[in-house]
Amino acid sequence: MKVLRVEVPRPAAAPSYDVVIGRGALARLGEFAAARAPAHRYAVIADSRVAELYGEAALASLAGEGLDALLLPFPAGEWNKTRETWADVLDGLLEAGLGRDAAVIGLGGGVTGDLAGFVAATFLRGVPVVQVPTTLLAMVDSSVGGKTGVDAPAAKNATGAFHHPAGVLVDPDVLVTLPPFQLRAGLAEPVKMAAMRDAEFFAWIAERADGLAAAAGADGVAAGADGVAAGATDELEALVGRSVAAKAAVVAADPLERDLRAVLNFGHTVGHALEALSGYSLVHGEAVAFGMRVEARLGELVGCTAAGTADAIGRVLDACGLPAEPDPDWTVERILAAARADKKSRRGAIRWALPARIGEAARDGAGAHTVELPTDELPALLGAALRTCAEVPDSPA
Amino acid sequence: MKVLRVEVPRPAAAPSYDVVIGRGALARLGEFAAARAPAHRYAVIADSRVAELYGEAALASLAGEGLDALLLPFPAGEWNKTRETWADVLDGLLEAGLGRDAAVIGLGGGVTGDLAGFVAATFLRGVPVVQVPTTLLAMVDSSVGGKTGVDAPAAKNATGAFHHPAGVLVDPDVLVTLPPFQLRAGLAEPVKMAAMRDAEFFAWIAERADGLAAAAGADGVAAGADGVAAGATDELEALVGRSVAAKAAVVAADPLERDLRAVLNFGHTVGHALEALSGYSLVHGEAVAFGMRVEARLGELVGCTAAGTADAIGRVLDACGLPAEPDPDWTVERILAAARADKKSRRGAIRWALPARIGEAARDGAGAHTVELPTDELPALLGAALRTCAEVPDSPA
Repeated sequence: MKVLRVEVPRPAAAPSYDVVIGRGALARLGEFAAARAPAHRYAVIADSRVAELYGEAALASLAGEGLDALLLPFPAGEWNKTRETWADVLDGLLEAGLGRDAAVIGLGGGVTGDLAGFVAATFLRGVPVVQVPTTLLAMVDSSVGGKTGVDAPAAKNATGAFHHPAGVLVDPDVLVTLPPFQLRAGLAEPVKMAAMRDAEFFAWIAERADGLAAAAGADGVAAGADGVAAGATDELEALVGRSVAAKAAVVAADPLERDLRAVLNFGHTVGHALEALSGYSLVHGEAVAFGMRVEARLGELVGCTAAGTADAIGRVLDACGLPAEPDPDWTVERILAAARADKKSRRGAIRWALPARIGEAARDGAGAHTVELPTDELPALLGAALRTCAEVPDSPA
Repeated sequence: MKVLRVEVPRPAAAPSYDVVIGRGALARLGEFAAARAPAHRYAVIADSRVAELYGEAALASLAGEGLDALLLPFPAGEWNKTRETWADVLDGLLEAGLGRDAAVIGLGGGVTGDLAGFVAATFLRGVPVVQVPTTLLAMVDSSVGGKTGVDAPAAKNATGAFHHPAGVLVDPDVLVTLPPFQLRAGLAEPVKMAAMRDAEFFAWIAERADGLAAAAGADGVAAGADGVAAGATDELEALVGRSVAAKAAVVAADPLERDLRAVLNFGHTVGHALEALSGYSLVHGEAVAFGMRVEARLGELVGCTAAGTADAIGRVLDACGLPAEPDPDWTVERILAAARADKKSRRGAIRWALPARIGEAARDGAGAHTVELPTDELPALLGAALRTCAEVPDSPA
C-alpha cells in the first residue's frame, strides 16, 4: 500500500490525514475506518449504482471488524447533487438514530464524495468522513482536499463547506467497472495538475496517455484479464499516486484556497460553464479538458501563457481521447454568464487560473496565482479561443 | 467598550476573535466590520422584525465606512429556522451576485445568529460572519462559540456546522425594544453558566435577579427614561460581560464540544424537548429554565447533585420571573422520546450535563463532564423530577 500524507495547516479545521492507495484496499475498509475514524456507527453513502456494485463489499469489510454500519443509497446522477438529496440523506441518518459519535463513509465518484462530505460537515455540526473514491476522477482529485458541497439552482457547488476527510482509501481495482468514458474523463485532472505544477509529471503523462486511453477503450481496464489490462491498472495506480502527491502539496500550502490552491481551477471556469450548458451530458472531466483547451488559448492570446503551451496540452488531451470539438450551443455570451455566476469571481470580476508554461502557473502583477483579464475584450478573446481550441498540430511546432 | 477575547485553539478552524460590548456600539458596526471581516460586499441577514427596527441603522453605519452592503430579511419566528429558509437566504446571496470575497452579518436573536452563521459556513464553502446579537439570549450565549445551524424536521439544530465568527458586536441599548418575556428568558443562560462554572457569578446574579426581572417587567428596559431603566441597562451590560467571559473560557478549552463544553447543555436536554413539545410557544430561555429545574432535581435524585442545588437554582429562576409550572402535555414518555432524538445522546444513551453543586459540573467515573443515568429507572426518575420541580422553598433550607 502506498501512503501519502496530506498536511492541513491552520486555519483549516482538520488535522492531517493519509491517502492510502493499493489494489484490493476495499477489503480493508473496516480496518481503515476503525483506525482513522473510530465511531459508534458508520453510514456508508453511495449512489444507487455504486451501492449495487460495492455496497456489500464495503459493509462486509466493516462488519468483519465488528463495526456497525448501514448503507444509505441515493439516486445516481450529477443532477441529483442537490440540497434536496443532501437533506434526504441527512434525514436518513437521523431516522437511523445516528448520533454525534457516528462517522460517514463516502463510497463513489465525485458527486458522492462531495455529497457525503457535506453531509458529514453538517450532520449534528460535523462528524468525520472517510472517502473511498471509486472513479478515477475522484481518486486523483476530488477525494483529497476537503472540498464538499452540492449545487444551488443558480450555481454549481455553491452550497458547501471545507471538511477534510479523516482518511482516503483508494482501491484501483474498482476501476474495472468504470465506463470507459469515465476513465478517460478521469485523466483530465492529472493533466491539469501537471500543466500547472509539474513539467516532469506532464511529460510522464504525455508518454503514457495513449496507453491509458487505449486500456479504457474497451469495457473498462480489466475487460480482459490479460497483461495489458493488469498493466494498465498498475499504471493507473501510479498515476493516482503522483496526482494525489501533487494535489496534497498544493492543499498543504493553501488549504482554504486563499491563493495558490486556485491554480487547480485551471480549465474549470469554462469547464463548469460547459457542464451546466450541456445539462450535465458532458461529465466533469470532459468539461474540464475542454475548458483547459479554451483557457490555455485564452492565456496565449493575452500573453499570460507561453506560445505552444495550448498545443502541448491539446496533444495530451487528444491522446487521452478527450473531446476537442465545441458544441454550437456554447456561445461566448452563455459561457461568460455562467462563469460570472461561479465562485471563482472576486470583486465581481472572474479570476482565471492559467499556465504560464507547462508546469507553472501564471501570476498577476501582485504575485497572485490567478489573473484578471480585460473585461471589455473578454468576449472577443474567448470567441477566438473557442474557435481555435480544436486546432492542435500533431507534433510540436 | 469592553473587549473580550475568545481563544479558539485547534482543531477548530477559526482564529481567535473579540466580543466588543458597549452602549451605542451598533452605530460603529461599519468600522467593526471593516476591521474584523474586511470584504468586498456585506449581506446583513435579519428577520423581518429586526430588519424593520435596526436594518437601516446597520446599513447606515456600513455605508458610513464606504462599505457596500445589502439587507436580506427572512420571516421572523423560530419555526422559520429551517433548511428552506437557509436555502432561500443562500440563493438571495447568489442572486445579488455576492462572491467569495463577501461577508455575512447576522443581526438579530438566536435564530438569526444560527441561520446567518450557517449561511456563512456554507456559502461558496464558507465566508466570514460578524454576529450582532439583538436579544439578551443571543448576547450572553448563542452569538459566541461558533455553533450554527437550522432545524431538521426530526430534530432541533440537527443541520449545522461549527463556524466561529470573525467578531461579535454587542450593543445593550438595543434591548429597549426587546419584549419583556424575551428579556426574562435571556436570564436563563447566565444562570446556567454560573450554576455549572462559577459560584461567585451565581451569587452575583442571585443578588440582582429581582431588579433585572423588574426592569424587564415593563415594556422593555427603557420603558421610561428614568434612572431604573438606565441602571438596568448598565447591569445588563455587566451581565453580558460576565456571561461572555464565562462562556469564552469554556469554548477556548473545548471549541468542538468534545467534553467540557457539554456542561453548557445543562437544562437543554429537557429544555429542547419542551421547546419542541410546546410547538415553540415556549421560547428557548423559558424552556431551558424549566429544563434546569427538572434536571437539577434529577441530579439530586440520582445523587450526582448536592442536596439544595435544585432549590437554589429554582429560587434564582423564580426571581427572574421564569416559568415553574409544568404543562400537562409534557409527559415523561414524550420528553424522553424527544431527548433521545437530540444531539446529546452518545452510543444511543442520553448524556446529561448536571451540576455537582452550584458552580461545578458533575463528572462521571471516567472524569467526563456529562453523565449517563440508569436507562431503566429514567422514566420514574424523570417523572419524580417533573412533579417536584415547581416546589421551591422561599429561602435556603
